[in-house]
Amino acid sequence: MLKVGLRLGGCAQAWCSVRMASAGVTRQKPLANKVALVTASTDGIGFAISRRLAQDGAHVVISSRKQKNVDRAVATLKGEGLSVTGTVCHVGKAEDRKQLVAMAVNLHGGIDILVSNAAVNPFFGNLMDVTEDVWDKTLDINVKATALMTKEVVPEMEKRGGGSVVIVSSVAAFTPFHGLGPYNVSKTALLGLTKNLALELAPKNIRVNCLAPGLIKTNFSSMFWMDKTKEENAKNFMQIERIGKPEECAGIVSFMCSEDASYITGETVVVGGGTPSRL
Amino acid sequence: MLKVGLRLGGCAQAWCSVRMASAGVTRQKPLANKVALVTASTDGIGFAISRRLAQDGAHVVISSRKQKNVDRAVATLKGEGLSVTGTVCHVGKAEDRKQLVAMAVNLHGGIDILVSNAAVNPFFGNLMDVTEDVWDKTLDINVKATALMTKEVVPEMEKRGGGSVVIVSSVAAFTPFHGLGPYNVSKTALLGLTKNLALELAPKNIRVNCLAPGLIKTNFSSMFWMDKTKEENAKNFMQIERIGKPEECAGIVSFMCSEDASYITGETVVVGGGTPSRL
Amino acid sequence: MLKVGLRLGGCAQAWCSVRMASAGVTRQKPLANKVALVTASTDGIGFAISRRLAQDGAHVVISSRKQKNVDRAVATLKGEGLSVTGTVCHVGKAEDRKQLVAMAVNLHGGIDILVSNAAVNPFFGNLMDVTEDVWDKTLDINVKATALMTKEVVPEMEKRGGGSVVIVSSVAAFTPFHGLGPYNVSKTALLGLTKNLALELAPKNIRVNCLAPGLIKTNFSSMFWMDKTKEENAKNFMQIERIGKPEECAGIVSFMCSEDASYITGETVVVGGGTPSRL
Amino acid sequence: MLKVGLRLGGCAQAWCSVRMASAGVTRQKPLANKVALVTASTDGIGFAISRRLAQDGAHVVISSRKQKNVDRAVATLKGEGLSVTGTVCHVGKAEDRKQLVAMAVNLHGGIDILVSNAAVNPFFGNLMDVTEDVWDKTLDINVKATALMTKEVVPEMEKRGGGSVVIVSSVAAFTPFHGLGPYNVSKTALLGLTKNLALELAPKNIRVNCLAPGLIKTNFSSMFWMDKTKEENAKNFMQIERIGKPEECAGIVSFMCSEDASYITGETVVVGGGTPSRL
Repeated sequence: MLKVGLRLGGCAQAWCSVRMASAGVTRQKPLANKVALVTASTDGIGFAISRRLAQDGAHVVISSRKQKNVDRAVATLKGEGLSVTGTVCHVGKAEDRKQLVAMAVNLHGGIDILVSNAAVNPFFGNLMDVTEDVWDKTLDINVKATALMTKEVVPEMEKRGGGSVVIVSSVAAFTPFHGLGPYNVSKTALLGLTKNLALELAPKNIRVNCLAPGLIKTNFSSMFWMDKTKEENAKNFMQIERIGKPEECAGIVSFMCSEDASYITGETVVVGGGTPSRL
Repeated sequence: MLKVGLRLGGCAQAWCSVRMASAGVTRQKPLANKVALVTASTDGIGFAISRRLAQDGAHVVISSRKQKNVDRAVATLKGEGLSVTGTVCHVGKAEDRKQLVAMAVNLHGGIDILVSNAAVNPFFGNLMDVTEDVWDKTLDINVKATALMTKEVVPEMEKRGGGSVVIVSSVAAFTPFHGLGPYNVSKTALLGLTKNLALELAPKNIRVNCLAPGLIKTNFSSMFWMDKTKEENAKNFMQIERIGKPEECAGIVSFMCSEDASYITGETVVVGGGTPSRL
Repeated sequence: MLKVGLRLGGCAQAWCSVRMASAGVTRQKPLANKVALVTASTDGIGFAISRRLAQDGAHVVISSRKQKNVDRAVATLKGEGLSVTGTVCHVGKAEDRKQLVAMAVNLHGGIDILVSNAAVNPFFGNLMDVTEDVWDKTLDINVKATALMTKEVVPEMEKRGGGSVVIVSSVAAFTPFHGLGPYNVSKTALLGLTKNLALELAPKNIRVNCLAPGLIKTNFSSMFWMDKTKEENAKNFMQIERIGKPEECAGIVSFMCSEDASYITGETVVVGGGTPSRL
Repeated sequence: MLKVGLRLGGCAQAWCSVRMASAGVTRQKPLANKVALVTASTDGIGFAISRRLAQDGAHVVISSRKQKNVDRAVATLKGEGLSVTGTVCHVGKAEDRKQLVAMAVNLHGGIDILVSNAAVNPFFGNLMDVTEDVWDKTLDINVKATALMTKEVVPEMEKRGGGSVVIVSSVAAFTPFHGLGPYNVSKTALLGLTKNLALELAPKNIRVNCLAPGLIKTNFSSMFWMDKTKEENAKNFMQIERIGKPEECAGIVSFMCSEDASYITGETVVVGGGTPSRL
């Protein structure tokens, strides 16, 4: 006990300077031995979620479309002592989805958690300029592939007696981001997909919930904060007047996947610093 | 005036037995001389909306995928003295959308109103059994084609100085209908599409709103009320304990297209007899 | 004459309006012979609603706390040829509520419609400065008195076989107006009151709906538009970039009270020019 | 040891937890050394929350209206090795609120967390039978006292540089429980109070969020599950077909009070097993 106290003694942040208050027993890592798939997880929010799930005890399989991104992300997280592997996966391709599931099952014997974060790079512009092709890609990857990826993991979760799915939507599902029409619409669709999957998978003891991040500082969202005027404009709509950090989206995902959330299903949690969403 | 009063004298229903109370002036037909396109309008809710828009003064162009359905619907409404024409239109096809717009412009000189009601026959079954093909068709027709149909009419509305779009979603957008996963999800997407189009089209003086019908007695929804047990189960969730009628969805659409709704945009109105939706 | 009467008498209810309209007759006043109570109706939104209900055929009983305001409003509307009477009513007082109902019943034989618009002048300032007294008054008048006023009219509506209640909330129920904490909270409560009353009164054939106006140009809201900076700030959140007019809130209320809204209950319609509210 | 401490001292805040976790150390108690007030916490959900906050490292001051209940609850939790004290507090009384705050400050030097759970025993019956007195008590305790209790703790939180408030509402805020009108309405009001407090307190680094439990097995809710028919009826609306446990509401509250929720404010999380609420 003393040793831990000393080791932590140098950390100024209030929540770092902890000690074992109650009966001296440490709470178990909430996701100990769980196996988690996270898509689009080599960067930004997906990467932060992967790290957190692993810190909380899970074996995490990360993935994205490029091998070098996978390699870098795996190396980083392994370097932190976490149980992480990775593979290339384009969630829009059936073979890739199957292969991702197979890999997790082969490595770890099953799947308990899916975090579906994959989304196409959003088209920026007017809805009146959006082509069929943009709609197709956006709905394909953001909505259909999320449903199909879930379909792929469910049999594995059933074998384990249950599981947890978290779908990453956006606060733009409620209050549109200007110029990101198809992206926004696809994210609204995910709120519905969450409700529908929750309804259908509850009898299989699989809970399905949703994360709706607000404006988070990632490459993905850089168009909103690279430009100072836009950043100020965006902050105008927030209560917590700063752009969020990827790590700030990670804890809630781990929570929703944990036993602590056993009675939560079909719900969306907004992590948006008070950006207008809904009651 | 007297004649009208007398003619109506025999109608028992409270709202039929009217008289000209104030200053003797009759309120103008709210959609007089407006030109309205309604998709999927030869039957059910779309047909009831078309009739109502025409009764309220609009020139209505109805459409659906089959010529004989178009012919029958046009004949019926013309027989009622309404200004209605029609054409075959598969909203998923670019040429059909263009041709529908062209027809309205040729006949009536422009377009003021679009009611987008088209939707594929829903797949009934488990989400875990839904194929890529079902997702593709559902998102294509219910979401993408709605966006593209709107894109097609907007230039015509701009020429007229503004317009009104009403998108037909469903209460299932909020609270899923069992067994209709992809349909439900596509309807949730339409809530978002409404918000996004409203945001973008407001500067063009085009308002965009959304109707979310509950369980309405149409061929489309017959799976829910053919079977007595299902009907009873459905009623369990309603406050007004009966299935709605298509006509009960029509007045609100006419209203949203009228000048009376000039400060309403981006909103969804649920016509669901009190089925759970949202605050 | 008699023959037409008989024709109408014999037709199925849903088709009555159809036949009338298609026969080339003007659509009848939707609230003809209905008796409507509107509270806080001598000014602003309440006044605009009263005028509209009367224009649409209703006998309207207006009311507010000051005799001279009642007199002026009644004189104005009578001058327009409308069927309007008025009385002083402080909705927070049981005797006043009873007397208002009694007056309507004596004059017109019953009550069909209640529009509950009464609200205290909002406290402007920080929630941290709000005293018990401000909370008491705000919740008393805005919430409790709305419930009790409804309770008072329901027996009269039951005698008529049904009725319609519209509660006036605010878009601030969803997205708070800065500095109006207790007002905002009371308006959120009204969204719930609407749902609860709808649920309980549906078996009595009484529908209960809610209007949520955005920023509307009235004395009440002048704090938001007197000051140019505030007005610009407010417009920043709207899609239709102007402050609304009281008349723009009136049509929807008349609509919700009409037979056209027969399958709509428990719903809130936002009239806010696209101010963020909810999906 | 010292070296690790130094390393942590110099690292950017966001990375502190990462390094610790990846170094193989157990994740620390997330609320270590925090001081938490929980009202109505000697039983049911409030008690489960208190236990959890204490297990997660907080010093918890519990309270309710009866000394013997306070004594029993404190004894139980102390018996589990938790840091818990308690006092009688009727949240409707200004002196009691002051005294509760004073006690926490005296004992622990300040306040970081408030969980406001107090509510009157709900009136069961028709809204048409609700007296002024029932409305008064319900709005007083459930809404006004929540606002005033928050007002009381905020100055203490400011002294600490920030804090976290969690308000306990109910899924009935969205979808009314039959027969509990005033309770339901007061819980809807709390959704609004959450948004309003979040908006106002964000500049003080105080986050305000809300828990909306569904049907949870407590004395409070026994009317819904004592009777088998009612329990079955209730389950009909859930996706997870069982009544929730108080503990299932506790983790999310601890989470919302922790640093992990640093970008979450103004949000309501439903813990309802999939009971219809909202998107």
